[in-house]
Amino acid sequence: MNNCLFCKIAAKEIPSTIVYEDDQVLVFMAIGPIIKGHALVISKQHHDPVTETPDDVLAKLHQVAKRIARAQMNGLGADGVNIMQNNGKAAGQEVPHIHVHVIPRFNDDGHHWNWNAGKYDDLSEMTELAGKMQKCL
Amino acid sequence: MNNCLFCKIAAKEIPSTIVYEDDQVLVFMAIGPIIKGHALVISKQHHDPVTETPDDVLAKLHQVAKRIARAQMNGLGADGVNIMQNNGKAAGQEVPHIHVHVIPRFNDDGHHWNWNAGKYDDLSEMTELAGKMQKCL
Repeated sequence: MNNCLFCKIAAKEIPSTIVYEDDQVLVFMAIGPIIKGHALVISKQHHDPVTETPDDVLAKLHQVAKRIARAQMNGLGADGVNIMQNNGKAAGQEVPHIHVHVIPRFNDDGHHWNWNAGKYDDLSEMTELAGKMQKCL
Repeated sequence: MNNCLFCKIAAKEIPSTIVYEDDQVLVFMAIGPIIKGHALVISKQHHDPVTETPDDVLAKLHQVAKRIARAQMNGLGADGVNIMQNNGKAAGQEVPHIHVHVIPRFNDDGHHWNWNAGKYDDLSEMTELAGKMQKCL
């Protein structure tokens, strides 16, 4: 894609700090890390969003993300890891080229995800939404 | 695992509102949704964390998560989707059995992830962390 930032990074037209690379994926350091060590796993080919990404590419992205998670634990001493893949501006995605955030977490890092669990008015509301999703599987 | 909540849900010992099921995975509605429609994709077999989850299981979890994301877009009218997989208490994981959160997002849903990008003191700090990770790949 002509004007895609991550395509340019994959093509080395824009420099990045590379952690891992093979024929299908590139892993580089996020320059605006949530926590230091935050890495991005991207496909070299342009795909977006997840629903338009081939299953084999998706599998590869997450298998590499797993290796990066292990490297954050073993190499950086991370106590945990968040693996996050955002789709659409409504979900906070900034670059429309599929990428998996791999974010090392430490017991004392002070970050929180604003994880406020909501609730359903009643069980039937949840069942109704499940039904709407099932019709589109 | 004897006392694993998600193993019990997979075994139907604890009821859930099921969205999708096959021989390897179960998808059910989160009872404490970040956004209504939030679903969890779990493996029926117990694995945890991602670094101990076989590659084929990981691939399957994310291929199903992709289908759920599509169902949230097409069935619920979601404008975007967050796909998130947390590992370890430090990362906010509450149930130690691998699960992928698939969270529908709407332009007006008001949720934010507290996504505050940090920065490195200098380029060498980022390069050093990348090097530590590379040694553990």
